[in-house]
Amino acid sequence: MRPDSSTPTLDDVARLAGVSRATASRVLNSGTTVHEDKRRAVEAAVAKLGYVPNHLARALATQRAGVVALMLPENEDRIFSDPFFSQLYHGALQGFTGSRTRVVLSVSQPGDAPDAMARYLSSGHLDGAIVASHHGWEIARQLHATGRPVVFIGDPGISGAPYVDIAQEEGVRLAVDHLVARGATRIATITGPLDMVVGRRRLEAFRDTLADHGLMPVAAVAGGFTREGGEAAAQELLAREAGFDGLFVASDLMARGALRALRRAGREVPRDLLLASFDDSVIATESDPQLTSVGNPAPELAAEASRMLRAILAGEAVDSPCILPTRISVRESA
Amino acid sequence: MRPDSSTPTLDDVARLAGVSRATASRVLNSGTTVHEDKRRAVEAAVAKLGYVPNHLARALATQRAGVVALMLPENEDRIFSDPFFSQLYHGALQGFTGSRTRVVLSVSQPGDAPDAMARYLSSGHLDGAIVASHHGWEIARQLHATGRPVVFIGDPGISGAPYVDIAQEEGVRLAVDHLVARGATRIATITGPLDMVVGRRRLEAFRDTLADHGLMPVAAVAGGFTREGGEAAAQELLAREAGFDGLFVASDLMARGALRALRRAGREVPRDLLLASFDDSVIATESDPQLTSVGNPAPELAAEASRMLRAILAGEAVDSPCILPTRISVRESA
Repeated sequence: MRPDSSTPTLDDVARLAGVSRATASRVLNSGTTVHEDKRRAVEAAVAKLGYVPNHLARALATQRAGVVALMLPENEDRIFSDPFFSQLYHGALQGFTGSRTRVVLSVSQPGDAPDAMARYLSSGHLDGAIVASHHGWEIARQLHATGRPVVFIGDPGISGAPYVDIAQEEGVRLAVDHLVARGATRIATITGPLDMVVGRRRLEAFRDTLADHGLMPVAAVAGGFTREGGEAAAQELLAREAGFDGLFVASDLMARGALRALRRAGREVPRDLLLASFDDSVIATESDPQLTSVGNPAPELAAEASRMLRAILAGEAVDSPCILPTRISVRESA
Repeated sequence: MRPDSSTPTLDDVARLAGVSRATASRVLNSGTTVHEDKRRAVEAAVAKLGYVPNHLARALATQRAGVVALMLPENEDRIFSDPFFSQLYHGALQGFTGSRTRVVLSVSQPGDAPDAMARYLSSGHLDGAIVASHHGWEIARQLHATGRPVVFIGDPGISGAPYVDIAQEEGVRLAVDHLVARGATRIATITGPLDMVVGRRRLEAFRDTLADHGLMPVAAVAGGFTREGGEAAAQELLAREAGFDGLFVASDLMARGALRALRRAGREVPRDLLLASFDDSVIATESDPQLTSVGNPAPELAAEASRMLRAILAGEAVDSPCILPTRISVRESA
């Protein structure tokens, strides 16, 4: 239960409290027949050392905290700038309606130890977690390795780890097929971070779909799933290869950034090139032009993950992965 | 530790486990010299009943969870639409840097019991909380009544409750003085919810400042601190009293909504009327026209509240209230 991992013993408690081991044990196991001042000293020592008796640890393990976390190993500025994350929280809150469980949000914190989230998950203060946007596999592996109930949103790339996802490849295919059907032949892409499974899978699906149309990718630049990243990636694409007439952007937020760079360069969408993106979030409808975008229904993903986690907490078997279908919303950009 | 409040006894555990009270006690106090299957049965009963042995409850009370919550008794859609709240979380995360404490976000949940947040605070799974935007006093009172470490952002109206706030009256005075100095003489206001201390205080300060200028308020309509509420309030003001040449709006978000209603009515800001608002958030700079707005520095408020909470957790005395100064940023709207 204490932040760091060294484990104080009952002897440590007794030494610090200035009482015998037997007295310390009596305080912790019954609390009776012990002088008030000694009891106080022992409890102070317990608090100071963060001592956790074995039976307390076991009892904690069998107790329910009544709290689960939506863990987003992201800096909180991304959480609040990308509607995908707020919709995940919305879906998780909805998914636990009527469960009398607090659903708290936990994000990356400045100065976090690498295993800070895994420690929290195994601290006894959470019954389980829903985890999204796990950069790389390391945090996902740590969380899965705690053995605590965890459901991932998006494929964490860990065999046996329950997760919910959309049909990524089908989604990308919908976008690329649409660009090709609208006449694009020289198509570039702005990808998500390639240390994320979803970033790699969307890039691969982009290439595969182009190949099925007998086309080669013009260029691919990573945009980090941020608006600024999308803007910088579009600038690089323009510098590298101005000749593309189609652009698949792996998130609406990056697409919004890309639109700014394209406009500055005098390339109007959809007049000069067609653009399709991913997420179909409020950004897609608020952008000018409005974005043709593939749905990534965060509320449904989180609600499904919540159902899965509730089933696991209830000791029921769950089918994993749970893959949700997706669709494309055709708007002004392509 | 369990969501509901009835308290199961060791006898309940023994009965459910189908073992003697002595056996149940042995399991919980040592776990040794007990048949594996009986131990399992007892632990299952403990989990099912949410039984908390006295010594476990006491130990939990003396233990640190290593977790604090930023509690926002708001629907999560408001949390994510109003940058004030995301900046509070940012400030709280910054404020606990280096403390090895998880800072989680907890909001109102669908189907919450009235005391859901107070239960969480006193569950042993939180060391304390920072609480902002407490509609009415009830939730604030409940949280304060738990006796757990709590610091409020904004005056909760409870004597003895530590809180951080800005100089509200001075802030409103800056805005109204500015409108008057720019020539406004018929000034209306869109207020926050009047079940919130801050809503009432800003309205009173608005009236007091006008009085000091020998002016009467033209009209006051509540806008609920939301964009939609601000838009509706402005519509009502226009219907009621189209003659105002100045408007003080108690939040940037409401001001953004008000601008839409004013534009639809053909009233251009600042050409036809001057507008000043409160918060000086990103909304103020992203609006068109950009808003003249009084600062409500969420990151500083939350960082200060974090320092206060850390001091309380460290057993140090704190000075309350902590009142931060504010300033006005003059932009296009007035």
